[in-house]
Amino acid sequence: MIEEITKSAKNAFNKTMNAPSKTKNDVLENIAKLLEEKREYVFTANREDLNNAKKLLEENKINQATYNRLKLDENKMRDMIKGLYDLIKLDDPVNNVIWTKELDKNLILKKVSTPIGIIGIIFEARPDCIIQISSLVIKSGNCAILKGGSESIETNKALFGIIRDALKKSNYPVDTINLVYTRDDVKEMLAYDKYIDLIIPRGSNSLVKYIKENTKIPVLGHASGICHIFIDESAEENEVNRIVIDAKTQYPSACNAVETILIHKNYPYKKSLKEALEKAGVKIIDNPESYSTEYGDKIVSFKTADSINEAIEHINKFGSGHTDSILSKNNENIEKFMNNVDSASVFANCSTRFSDGFRYGFGAEVGISTNKTHSRGPVGLEGLTIYKYKLYGSNNTVEDYVSGKKQFSHKML
Amino acid sequence: MIEEITKSAKNAFNKTMNAPSKTKNDVLENIAKLLEEKREYVFTANREDLNNAKKLLEENKINQATYNRLKLDENKMRDMIKGLYDLIKLDDPVNNVIWTKELDKNLILKKVSTPIGIIGIIFEARPDCIIQISSLVIKSGNCAILKGGSESIETNKALFGIIRDALKKSNYPVDTINLVYTRDDVKEMLAYDKYIDLIIPRGSNSLVKYIKENTKIPVLGHASGICHIFIDESAEENEVNRIVIDAKTQYPSACNAVETILIHKNYPYKKSLKEALEKAGVKIIDNPESYSTEYGDKIVSFKTADSINEAIEHINKFGSGHTDSILSKNNENIEKFMNNVDSASVFANCSTRFSDGFRYGFGAEVGISTNKTHSRGPVGLEGLTIYKYKLYGSNNTVEDYVSGKKQFSHKML
Repeated sequence: MIEEITKSAKNAFNKTMNAPSKTKNDVLENIAKLLEEKREYVFTANREDLNNAKKLLEENKINQATYNRLKLDENKMRDMIKGLYDLIKLDDPVNNVIWTKELDKNLILKKVSTPIGIIGIIFEARPDCIIQISSLVIKSGNCAILKGGSESIETNKALFGIIRDALKKSNYPVDTINLVYTRDDVKEMLAYDKYIDLIIPRGSNSLVKYIKENTKIPVLGHASGICHIFIDESAEENEVNRIVIDAKTQYPSACNAVETILIHKNYPYKKSLKEALEKAGVKIIDNPESYSTEYGDKIVSFKTADSINEAIEHINKFGSGHTDSILSKNNENIEKFMNNVDSASVFANCSTRFSDGFRYGFGAEVGISTNKTHSRGPVGLEGLTIYKYKLYGSNNTVEDYVSGKKQFSHKML
Repeated sequence: MIEEITKSAKNAFNKTMNAPSKTKNDVLENIAKLLEEKREYVFTANREDLNNAKKLLEENKINQATYNRLKLDENKMRDMIKGLYDLIKLDDPVNNVIWTKELDKNLILKKVSTPIGIIGIIFEARPDCIIQISSLVIKSGNCAILKGGSESIETNKALFGIIRDALKKSNYPVDTINLVYTRDDVKEMLAYDKYIDLIIPRGSNSLVKYIKENTKIPVLGHASGICHIFIDESAEENEVNRIVIDAKTQYPSACNAVETILIHKNYPYKKSLKEALEKAGVKIIDNPESYSTEYGDKIVSFKTADSINEAIEHINKFGSGHTDSILSKNNENIEKFMNNVDSASVFANCSTRFSDGFRYGFGAEVGISTNKTHSRGPVGLEGLTIYKYKLYGSNNTVEDYVSGKKQFSHKML
């Protein structure tokens, strides 16, 4: 079955890869309008999921957090619709000329952005993900196969129906977005590295870890966010306390929340920081085993570092390459930290919580990647594109250049 | 053992990722000088390999092509040394600011190019690969684990020794470049997706295929090069014949040589092309089974296409996404072809053989990729880099922006 779906998606991609911006935006607008029109229908489907989930909650088969994420209320509906209109306003990431180069007078090379192809998207019980990710896929000219959490199956179906209706209404290939249902489907998807070009998981660390470990397809995402703040000896007491509290408590379960505070042995205000954290309800742990743990809660590890070098080494060893920040007044140390910490985002004198596509001004966020290829850090629409080379010739043969009859000019235009 | 090597490489990477351009170029110059000094020593090692290979050749355990590739003569030595000096002249691909953005007046975000990390390189009996690929790895601030063909083991050891000597001489981490020897080592390498960030295979299609099928690490390369030329009805007889002959015969075993000629049913000079190809010693095959075959020889498939759409469909179905060219005088058809053929390189009115890093003016070539993520088409030094985000703050917290006390400006600088 997945093979069939993948083939239809590939057929759709032959059309979507060059779809005009106007048509793609038209699809997004139709999704927004249909959401508006059919909100009661969506809420009804969501109530059905919530009723079923309540039983699972009572039987301890799911936890309260999962139950809460399942709920699609007026606020989430409003955010989904607003997200669509925001996306319409963003520039089309496809068919942009990245550069033009003259290889010879009558031989012009263009590097042009293109969509990637077929994207597999696997998410847990957050039904709003369907709209958010599908709209990014459509805007970037890609096609997708979605697998949602089984707890939100009715909501997923309702939202998927709306997307397909919008695609039809805009005369856009309906097979651009496909939905599959079972765990076996996911297994099959992960094995189709010949047809699926990228996998985006949205969910818990364990979901991402499972996917990364079970596919050869590139995975855009991060399994964990073990972020650090290094407090240099020159850092200021008040600013340190403010930033660390923000990085830990502003949203403790975020992947960019700080997990370990590395404190230079000569920093004089460690006690003051400890008190401030405790006052903010944060538990401090001082135990090497916690260095590799993402608590996602009001818990933080403390470690004394003899030097900035030791701090950098610790981060490169225990960190997840997500986001790490130095608090310091010493510019040399700041540069050393930012150049030598091998993480997607390296910060100076600010909270790790800034690591986010919207805060970076990307307008949309596909996810945050800790990969070392393709996309790293917060990923915007650009992360769903690659490029092709277009070479415009005038009946040129390679032999003329190999024989020396002609020479390349290689001039950037 | 591979784990130990990977760990030393990772330690080396902590230093190489920020190595100054001058030091990296110094290493390259030292390699060139040592090659010059120790040429006789290298040739002696190579003669030993050739002697052993001769026996294998007589026993039909290797073929003549492998034996020929094994040979390191004065020409190859000169090319290796010239390649090093050419590489020194290229810009450092690392630590370049891609863009700078003001998130707020005192919060500046920079996107900066960085090396990738640890690169696994697997190549067959082409000992000059060691120098070429190692020098690209050094220039880009990465570290590598190399596995060469067993037939060239003595030459590999000699060249590897020279690289390590040059690294020592320049006070550069010697563990930047590492050599392993057995098939089991390769197996282990391919399993270390946690430590190795990228695999570059250099060799036969079957080697690349084997590697792509047996690792979760991103592979930079292409398994096959099934390139097409579509002859539109408006194409000119003489130009068609010249370009097709160039694309097929200039170097038939190259991956960018044409394999299938799609001919519009109304193109009037098919017979003339047939005669020209036959005169050039090319065998023409007219059999659907050949559409997925890369002959790498003076053999070409012919297929009649009823329309440009049929040609595009054929290429997207049977091609390998490498390089495809349209010969036409119809600009609308040219654009249609270039936009809808989903290949790394799409050409108009020129030979497929232009698909090459040097011809594209990249100065160095890492390989040609048919991937849909990270790097596509001919890959230069840039393909060995990724980026990080550096955020320079002034004690900023996220809470100020979430609460609305402050607003992002998101201004490109």
